[in-house]
Amino acid sequence: MTTERHVRHFQDELGALNARLLEMGGHAEERLQSAVRGLVERDLAVLERVQGGDAAINRLHIEIDDRAFKLLALHQPMASDLRTIVAAVKINTDLERVGDLAVNVAQAAQRYLGHTPVKELIDIPRMAVIAQGMLRDALDAFVRQDTALAQSVLDRDDELDSLKTQVFRELLTFMVGDQGTIEPSLELILVSRHLERIGDHATNIAEDVIFIVSARDVRHPATGEPG
Amino acid sequence: MTTERHVRHFQDELGALNARLLEMGGHAEERLQSAVRGLVERDLAVLERVQGGDAAINRLHIEIDDRAFKLLALHQPMASDLRTIVAAVKINTDLERVGDLAVNVAQAAQRYLGHTPVKELIDIPRMAVIAQGMLRDALDAFVRQDTALAQSVLDRDDELDSLKTQVFRELLTFMVGDQGTIEPSLELILVSRHLERIGDHATNIAEDVIFIVSARDVRHPATGEPG
Repeated sequence: MTTERHVRHFQDELGALNARLLEMGGHAEERLQSAVRGLVERDLAVLERVQGGDAAINRLHIEIDDRAFKLLALHQPMASDLRTIVAAVKINTDLERVGDLAVNVAQAAQRYLGHTPVKELIDIPRMAVIAQGMLRDALDAFVRQDTALAQSVLDRDDELDSLKTQVFRELLTFMVGDQGTIEPSLELILVSRHLERIGDHATNIAEDVIFIVSARDVRHPATGEPG
Repeated sequence: MTTERHVRHFQDELGALNARLLEMGGHAEERLQSAVRGLVERDLAVLERVQGGDAAINRLHIEIDDRAFKLLALHQPMASDLRTIVAAVKINTDLERVGDLAVNVAQAAQRYLGHTPVKELIDIPRMAVIAQGMLRDALDAFVRQDTALAQSVLDRDDELDSLKTQVFRELLTFMVGDQGTIEPSLELILVSRHLERIGDHATNIAEDVIFIVSARDVRHPATGEPG
């Protein structure tokens, strides 16, 4: 194999790896969306489907690791390519956890539906939309190696965090005022925390993108050493 | 450099990487222990120290990634060595998150201390001991590539999960019985969930160990494909 063909083969394989990550991200997003829709529309069938797991995510999780390790072993990439492929292994783990968190949302939602509704749900669907957007943009930023888009993901994490605090405060008021709302309120607090953690995974991915492109470690700004 | 010297150099560097991971694990453990001790002994100074962060963990986080990427680039390892070094990058992230979760425990503990105590704390310190043991054994299992020890870490996760459920049920009884206990009980529920997540990170590490040694993916037993 000539060097040029070798390089082209590497780029093709990297493209296939990226495509699988986007596909896995799509599944994770879809599961998150379903879990929150099941909660808002009080649709038990949807919530049970999410809890049933997703064979496609499990299959992709194994395939992505497999592709990444083959790329590392066969092509022995350097510098930015090396960081990209190791990041793909980490992102793979992040996306699997997002799938798990969607299951956790669906479980809490199902328990919530066993109680009288506490309130109309406004902030939780907003949190889900933000988390989903962060996840999609973090993956796009990875594939395009777009640090500006990655930075915009990091910026949105504060918004998610303040919505989580708002949800908590509002539900606390309900709980203190009426003990019948304690159990369902706890489920909604859990849901908001699961959504926050999905945002954390998007943040992990965005930080990896900035690390890959700039070889600058944004994870500890105070320390300031190169990564 | 002869091949033999190259191999010896690689093994030395891998040993140094492992030593740094153990050191970082020690710091993470110490922070977890301090946070829970601060909660149990109602020691604000300890809790504030944990929240102040840990420069050593931040420094080690950057150094470990740096060493791992240098090993991958310079030695182009194959098979089990390759999986070990990529796992080191992932474990590095897990340990950093454990440090973050120790901060979260300290924050919730500090808020808890602002209220009248709800109850004597028994299960939360037990959870902390289990989580800490899981973390230490997962790292030992990584360094020794000991799958039996890694499996024992996976087995202890159920114990942690059932203690978390027990903590939740008990506190729910308090909250429903006396609205003055709602706010502090919520903080203790949070602490128990942070401890559970520390156990999850130990589980991640243990799964990586089994994956490295056996190249068998234990993460999706139903799928059953090799990793």
